Amino acid sequence: MKVGEREFRAVWWEGDGEGRVVMIDQRRLPHELVTVAARTVEEVAFLIMDMAVRGAPTIGATAAYGMVLGRDDPKRAANILGKARPTARDLFTAIEWMVKEPSRERAEAYVEGIVARCRMIGEHGAELLGRIAADRGRANVLTHCHAGALAAVDHGTALAPIHAYARGMGADGVRPLVWVDETRPRLQGAITAWELSAAGIDHKVVVDNAAGHLLSHGEADVVIVGADRIAANGDVANKVGTYGKAVLAKEHGVPFYVAAPSTTIDLSLPDGSHIEIEERGESEVLELRGRQLFGAGTHAFNPAFDVTPARFVTGYITESGVLQAEQLEPTFRPRDKLENDRTTGDT
Amino acid sequence: MKVGEREFRAVWWEGDGEGRVVMIDQRRLPHELVTVAARTVEEVAFLIMDMAVRGAPTIGATAAYGMVLGRDDPKRAANILGKARPTARDLFTAIEWMVKEPSRERAEAYVEGIVARCRMIGEHGAELLGRIAADRGRANVLTHCHAGALAAVDHGTALAPIHAYARGMGADGVRPLVWVDETRPRLQGAITAWELSAAGIDHKVVVDNAAGHLLSHGEADVVIVGADRIAANGDVANKVGTYGKAVLAKEHGVPFYVAAPSTTIDLSLPDGSHIEIEERGESEVLELRGRQLFGAGTHAFNPAFDVTPARFVTGYITESGVLQAEQLEPTFRPRDKLENDRTTGDT
Repeated sequence: MKVGEREFRAVWWEGDGEGRVVMIDQRRLPHELVTVAARTVEEVAFLIMDMAVRGAPTIGATAAYGMVLGRDDPKRAANILGKARPTARDLFTAIEWMVKEPSRERAEAYVEGIVARCRMIGEHGAELLGRIAADRGRANVLTHCHAGALAAVDHGTALAPIHAYARGMGADGVRPLVWVDETRPRLQGAITAWELSAAGIDHKVVVDNAAGHLLSHGEADVVIVGADRIAANGDVANKVGTYGKAVLAKEHGVPFYVAAPSTTIDLSLPDGSHIEIEERGESEVLELRGRQLFGAGTHAFNPAFDVTPARFVTGYITESGVLQAEQLEPTFRPRDKLENDRTTGDT
Repeated sequence: MKVGEREFRAVWWEGDGEGRVVMIDQRRLPHELVTVAARTVEEVAFLIMDMAVRGAPTIGATAAYGMVLGRDDPKRAANILGKARPTARDLFTAIEWMVKEPSRERAEAYVEGIVARCRMIGEHGAELLGRIAADRGRANVLTHCHAGALAAVDHGTALAPIHAYARGMGADGVRPLVWVDETRPRLQGAITAWELSAAGIDHKVVVDNAAGHLLSHGEADVVIVGADRIAANGDVANKVGTYGKAVLAKEHGVPFYVAAPSTTIDLSLPDGSHIEIEERGESEVLELRGRQLFGAGTHAFNPAFDVTPARFVTGYITESGVLQAEQLEPTFRPRDKLENDRTTGDT
């Protein structure tokens, strides 16, 4: 992604030999664009857990580089990194990919594979948006959480179609407008808004509560979200609040798409009931930047994700095209996926 | 309501002769329990607009006292107060009640009528909760926004049944648990939590996004919310986000109740599409206690309410019992309502 004149990725490797993993510190956005670096596996695991990096594909890429830092004892590194966050499938996809050969080259191949997949997600999704714009004369997209370039190394997942469609603007003369859910408790919407601002894409922030009002008033033509893990049947774990949007979208006949690379798909799980939902600390809800929002004696429950059943998903925007739930398993069954990884990784 | 050893109402009249309207400043809760006073109609209108008082019944009571301050020119007072907020029906119910005779006695009768109605809402709702507890062995209530004593002078609307049921605990041995939506952007959940803490009622705060996770996991036995305006057909305007909870509740077969006194019902509107939805300033979304949450160049859209169609409402907990949508009009048609007002007001 480009911010002003500078090209960024969400995470990258720096230095020869020992080296270090450098990432844009998403905890500081949108207020500051600064990086944070890790030199040990533990530091990488902590930064994933503390949400310096967010978004399943970026978490996966960060873990791939983390495995390089831990190359002297890859099983130990895999064990440490695997504890960082439980829900994002890409974390485990990356660890599995790296554990037998934790070299920098292999990590770069993994990361390039992610970037290539997300570029393809952008192209397939931009076509879809073009069809929606042709049909509706408008392309108003509601999105939840952050699923942009910072969440997916580059390009994004849910935002990749919007970036790609906006770059091709003029073909149909329709300017996309993005409704950005603020996404409590961590306000990832602020990162989405920051990224859309940098790309010059029209957007408006709404509180998470506003989706019902927007959808019932016909203000969104499509909902596109990312994913943290997709089960074999197409059930989707994504940032808490996604499911509510999916149910509302269905109620109002608004198409609901999930954009994700195959590295987020977990064919070992038959359905979403098997996906572990991370519960995070209550301070994320009760405090904001160190200030108490609630009175003493009040506690919070803070599930970080929810599961949207496949029946609410109109389609899955993947590197292999826009698929239906029943196409996920045949398209990405393990043999193909590994071959696909190698091929894409080598481009 | 009782906080420690002190009995409070949300708003009251102080002094003889000129007098003043005193209200608990809900902008300062849960951090400080302080009052703010108004000596002119304009001050009352500003404090309603700025949300020092919130909740349709409390807004109505505040306006009733405000009409007393403006008794020398009641039409002018009605005009000023009527501009304070557009959605809460009680504001207009109170103004209509006061405009022909803006005396302190009549204002007190109006306010006592509200208190009496909300006490009845508590009794009818507590019976309902008792039946749910008997059926489920549990009484976990999800609520949205603040619909407690501070929102309704005393007792509350959505919280009145919980307060009344909790006071009667031991009959069935079931302790209620309240899931408190934080309710962005203004975090009225903090007031709900504060009030439940004061009453010693178990509760947990969740972000507004968590409702889908809670309801799909069977964590709530019932949803109870208040209302700002109810149309003749039972469509309900309430704090933005209510509609999404209603759709999720229906999806999961969880009963969804609206608790409101008849002063919130607007029989002049055939359905919810005629209810004016207040749009508030974007700073409510973009800033929190003076701190910018989003980057420069990002704007917000901030509808304060949404409309839940009557088909999502299991029942309406009113002073006249738990009603179905089609019973609202026959039960509260204007003639009955006025008589009812006078009767209740004189108790």
